[in-house]
Order: sequence, then structure tokens, then C-alpha cells
Amino acid sequence: MTSAPLAAAAARLDADHAASDLRELFLLPDDVVYLDGNSLGALPRHVPDVVARAVLEDWGGELVRAWNSREWWRAPERVGERLAPVLGAGTGQVLVGDSTTVQLHQTVSAALRLRPDRRVVVTDPGAFPTDLYVVSGLVEARGLELVLASPAEVPAVLAERAAEVAVVVLQHVDHRTGELWDLPGITEAAHTAGALALWDLSHSAGALPVDLDAHEVDLAVGCGYKYLNGGPGAPAYVYVARRHQAAYTPDLRGWHGHAEPFAMSPTWRPAEGVRRARLGSPPLLSMLALEAALDVQDALPVARVRERSLSLTRFLRACVDELAPGLVPLTPEADEQRGSQVAWSHPAAWGVVHALAARGVIGDFREPDVVRLGVAAPYLTHADMLTAATRLGELLDAGEHLAGRPRPLVT
Amino acid sequence: MTSAPLAAAAARLDADHAASDLRELFLLPDDVVYLDGNSLGALPRHVPDVVARAVLEDWGGELVRAWNSREWWRAPERVGERLAPVLGAGTGQVLVGDSTTVQLHQTVSAALRLRPDRRVVVTDPGAFPTDLYVVSGLVEARGLELVLASPAEVPAVLAERAAEVAVVVLQHVDHRTGELWDLPGITEAAHTAGALALWDLSHSAGALPVDLDAHEVDLAVGCGYKYLNGGPGAPAYVYVARRHQAAYTPDLRGWHGHAEPFAMSPTWRPAEGVRRARLGSPPLLSMLALEAALDVQDALPVARVRERSLSLTRFLRACVDELAPGLVPLTPEADEQRGSQVAWSHPAAWGVVHALAARGVIGDFREPDVVRLGVAAPYLTHADMLTAATRLGELLDAGEHLAGRPRPLVT
Repeated sequence: MTSAPLAAAAARLDADHAASDLRELFLLPDDVVYLDGNSLGALPRHVPDVVARAVLEDWGGELVRAWNSREWWRAPERVGERLAPVLGAGTGQVLVGDSTTVQLHQTVSAALRLRPDRRVVVTDPGAFPTDLYVVSGLVEARGLELVLASPAEVPAVLAERAAEVAVVVLQHVDHRTGELWDLPGITEAAHTAGALALWDLSHSAGALPVDLDAHEVDLAVGCGYKYLNGGPGAPAYVYVARRHQAAYTPDLRGWHGHAEPFAMSPTWRPAEGVRRARLGSPPLLSMLALEAALDVQDALPVARVRERSLSLTRFLRACVDELAPGLVPLTPEADEQRGSQVAWSHPAAWGVVHALAARGVIGDFREPDVVRLGVAAPYLTHADMLTAATRLGELLDAGEHLAGRPRPLVT
Repeated sequence: MTSAPLAAAAARLDADHAASDLRELFLLPDDVVYLDGNSLGALPRHVPDVVARAVLEDWGGELVRAWNSREWWRAPERVGERLAPVLGAGTGQVLVGDSTTVQLHQTVSAALRLRPDRRVVVTDPGAFPTDLYVVSGLVEARGLELVLASPAEVPAVLAERAAEVAVVVLQHVDHRTGELWDLPGITEAAHTAGALALWDLSHSAGALPVDLDAHEVDLAVGCGYKYLNGGPGAPAYVYVARRHQAAYTPDLRGWHGHAEPFAMSPTWRPAEGVRRARLGSPPLLSMLALEAALDVQDALPVARVRERSLSLTRFLRACVDELAPGLVPLTPEADEQRGSQVAWSHPAAWGVVHALAARGVIGDFREPDVVRLGVAAPYLTHADMLTAATRLGELLDAGEHLAGRPRPLVT
């Protein structure tokens, strides 16, 4: 099952986008089309050497002195500054460290302290599960009210309960469907209601412009290991808009966020600026891998990543429509409503994803029936999109998705 | 300034303890005597290769598949099981992940839910600052009462306020003085009062037997980068005694701790056992470095590490008494009251530590006037102790500690 017109289109599109093809900056297995960079980003080619030096020279050679001599101490702010342009954030507002779960807890708890007289938190029932657990945990502990609403419904909720909403906590791109929500509009609606807007950028930052400052976002978090290619479990980041920093007081407070950490004072006095969001020693090997991976972001501004991504996802969708029509698209067709992935439903979705992997195309499955193909644009081509769609069509025709397959631990 | 009798004693003691000398398992700079392994443990020789493989083969080659194929998913419990014997813990009670700050917050918050009718938390005013910030943050947020008492005074506090104390949160070894507190006795006193005992093992685990199960400790945390040699910012661990696991409910709840994480359920249902303490994706490069470093623990049971450590710290103290009498010991002289470091006060402590480093002996300074020399026994010798004491005496005689020295960012 091949398509000469699609192959010609892929070749033409790849030629048109040759200048944004960064595949050579990555180490990827030759026999794989990797469409799961929205779960774990690929390995930038230069990162192994950076990590090896961090282990042998910094840890092994400098030992504890590396906190000064290799500037480990400044790493959370330094990596944050590296990341800031990717998020559309000016200096001094982004910090890297801890996990997305922890950072989300911290930002939501701080948001509630910034709006102490408001008792409603709004979030998306389709949010990533941890986000729901964190938000509902905080709401329960404080006896507040949780309102679940799709991002599309959130402006109406805000209008109706304007005086009550403390904070709206939403994912910028839906982790299953890939729908891109209206961050500027919802943020503005939140502000009109006197509420704060807190965005989880895990599935958008690095793949498309976020423009936090321009849209006056209040708080944001996101993970380092998807489109930022920071490696497995890379630390998360937090954005605290400068206007909120002086009053930013999250639940957990660590000595690295103290105004004078080495005074070892028994009472916490927060540092100036975003450094107050630091807790304890960050996982430096993981953090330095992320820092190095951000070189890739420098090589291609996120606006150009977005152009490439839109072309790739548009083409992927068209190829699948033609070659694998049994899949029902879940991702909006309009460019402005699509993140950097395409998802479809299929009654045997797990079998489809597993059979696809056996054919060298790695995507992933999400309950209950979602086939999700992530498009980390810098290291993928239109030819890759066609290969994926072709394999999908072939395996469906061959019925490979219907074979009984054991579920591994991690799906 | 040399001492022939001390040199002879060092040689004799090193010969006596030759079987527990694991220096060859570590990569250490030749020109350094490293007495700061209680801040950042040294680099085990085999760890760089393990980390390099994790980066290149697991991340680079397996990509997201490594969650299954390289068993990344099980790493928090697997590394916990590796660590359990070091802590004297049976299976299924130790988990690795997140930072000490986060784990302490989690265990204290869970302890408060295990004793919902009690309103007093007892902790040590000399605890590590983050521990104080975490405990006081939780106490304030819940409107409870914080009682500050030295561990020596805690049994009296427990007797006096038996019906009120929810949890006692203490460091096992004082991070400045090196005093080893009576974990068995205080734990028993807590239980007699109906309270829980939560221990921070950061300065004891890996250096001396902790025996959590034998002493019926309720909860414990500790960091991975000191005596466990897990590397900079290595993830922390948490111990939840089996009898408390079914009701263990910390403030932060993540999808990795869900009973069915890949069901992506909107409501949190905790996993059986200690896995419920998991949050999100752990920093795997840092975690795998820690896992490999635990091979060193297998090479020398912690009871034998302790024998070696006691001999080294006893000898270090004796050498300093003789060669650098200007230092005033802060660490108890009795073996059973001493962790694995020796600390002294000196009015120019910062100058002493800095001048000592210039002479190739790395220790550290703690406010306001503490010279702290950590003794990570597996890679240190009695000859190293004598070298450190000799250099201390020389620099004090030469007045090198009085030279003005700029303070670096991290002291």
C-alpha cells in the first residue's frame, strides 16, 4: 500500500522545510519513526558528553566544590533563564526543579493564597490525572469548591461566578486529543473575573509559542522531558509572573528558596524573585541534561518549530485519512486548535499502537480507545508522517491490531 | 608539624582495618583528602559507565520503550528495595523519589492524618533548616502547635503532653555537631505517648545501622547524595512502616502512586503498599546513578562501615586534640553518641575551612563558627585523618585562617 502522490507531496514538503530539519542534532535509532516525543523527547546528540562530564569532571573531580566552581547552585535559575524565551517569558520569572506534580501543587497552593477570599477552583475534567489529583487534593484540604469544566466552557463559568473563582487551572494542549485551548482568551476571562490563570504547558512548550508575558498569564508549570528533550524524568519548570512574586507563598518551603540560605536560619524568609520557588537540592544530573538539551531550542525559534509542526501534523492527518480510514480523528482539524500531535479513536486502539510499534513506528495508546501520535517537529519529516500512515494502513488491512497482545506494565 | 607516634598509630589502624578499605571502588582526585562526603558523597568508580549507558542505550536507543524494557517504571520501588537493608527495613517499605524536602512534607502531612485528634508536633530547633520550614509550614497551615525541643528533652515533652503529640520529627544525627540521638529510646517514648516517630536519616543512613524495623520507627526520610553516594541532588527516600501504609495519605498525590496509573482515572485511588508514595516521573538519570552507587553498600555491610567510621572519627578527634588544640570539639566523645563526622567550633571557622581546602583537605563550614569534617568511612583511611589534623595544625600555626577570604556563593 503506497501512494505515489503522497510520496511526491512528502518529498516536496520536506524540501520546502529543509531549513528547519534538525534531525542531525539528535541520536535516534535508524529503524524507528519516533512519534512519542510528547511522552519522552529524543536524545540530543551532544547531551551524552555533557552528562558524562557532569559525572566525571564535576561530581568526580570537583566534588562538593562544584556547587561553586561549576555553578551548580545557580542551575535552577540559569536553566530557567535558558527556557524563558521558549515560553515567551522575560527574565527572572522561570525556575527549573522538582517534578511537575510538585510544581503544580506549589503553584496552585500559592494561587489560593493570592486570592484568599475566593472559594472556587476551576479545572478541566479532561486534565492529566495528576493535575486533577493535585487540584482536588488542595480543594478538599481547604474546604473549597471544585468546578469541573472543559476549557471551552470556562469563560461562561467565569462570567457566572465572577466573584468566587480564585484560580483556573488548565492544560494548554489536551494530552489525549491534542486540542490547543485558547490561552489568551481564557486568561483574559479569568482576569476579568478577578481570578488567576494557571496553565500546564507540558504538551505545548517547545512545540508552539506560548507567550506567557504577552498574554499576562499568572502562573504556569510544565515538564522538561517532552518537547524540551530533557531526558527521562527531567525536572519541571515553574513560571511566576513578576507581579505575583513578592506574594508567592507555596505550601512547601525549602532552604534553597530562603533569602539567605547559608545563614541556616530557623525561620523561612523568602528570597527575592522567582528563586523563592526553590526547595532543596535539585537532581543535578537530570537538570544538566535538560540544560544542554535546550541548545536545540536555540537552533530553531519556537515560532519556526510551530510552522514545521503544523505542516507535519496537517500532512499526517491527510495521509491517515487516505491510507488508514478506519481511524476516527479526535484532534481538531483547524491549525489554530491543534497542538503538536494527532489522535484518533479506534475500538482496538491498544492493538493498533502495539502493531504499529512492531512495524517500527512508536506512538502511544491512551485509555480507553485513543491512538496518539506525537510530532516533535525538529527531528521528524513529512516522509516520516507518510511512513507512519502507510504502516497504519497496512497493519489495519492485515488485521494485525486484532492479535491478542499482552499489555506491558506501562502502556 | 608531624607526629611519629600518630603516624605509626595511623599505619597500624589502617592495617587493622584493611579489609574494610573500599577506596578502590571510588574515583577521587589524588591531591585531595575528602571530608565532605556528608554533604556530597564521592563518585563510585563504576557509576559513570552506568549513567552513560542509561543516557545512550536506554534513553537514546529504547526511547519511551525503556519504561518497560529497562524497567524504568519500577525504579522507585526497585531502588527502595536495594536501600532497605541499609536502613534495616524489610521489603515493601522503602521508596526512592523526589527531594528530601518533598518527602519530609509528605511524611509529616501523612503523619498528621494518622493522628487527626492530636494537635502538637515536636521537632528540634537544631534541625536542618528545611526540616524546620516544612514542619512549621504544615503546623501553621493546620493551626496546630509546634513545640521545639532538643532530642534529649523530647522524652520529657512526650511524657508531659502525652495525649496531645501527633508526631515527633527529628534528625537522627545532628547535621552540625554530629551528635547521634537515641532513636530507639525516643521512638519508644513517642509510642508510649501514642505519638508517631518520624526520623530524618540524611546524616546517618549508610554510615551507621539505623534498624528502622527493629526499633519500630513509623516514618523516615533521607537524602541519597551523602553517605549513599548517589550524586548531586540524588533523589531522596521515604520509609513507611507496613502497619501505616494502608492509611498513608500525604498532601501531594500523583498518578504514579495510583492503584491503576494507566487507567488515567480522574480520582486518586492509592496503590497498595509503599508505591502510593510515588508522585510523577522521577528524575531517572539521577535515580539510576543512586541505584548503581548502592553497589558500594553491598560490598560492606553498614555494621562494618560503622566500625570503620568509629575508628576513623575517634582517631581524627585524637589527632586534632594533639595537633590543632585551638579547635573546641562540639561532637560528643562517646562512640554511641557520635555519628560519622567530627565538628569543632572556632572563632574564625570560615577561615579555617577555607585555608584547609587550600591545603587539599575539603571539609565544610557551618554558621556561625563550626568546622565540620565528615567521615565517609569506606573511602577514607586513618592516614587521611592524620593528614587532615596535621594540615589543620599547620594552617592555624601559620595564621592562614586569619587571611581575608571572599565568601563564595555556597559555603
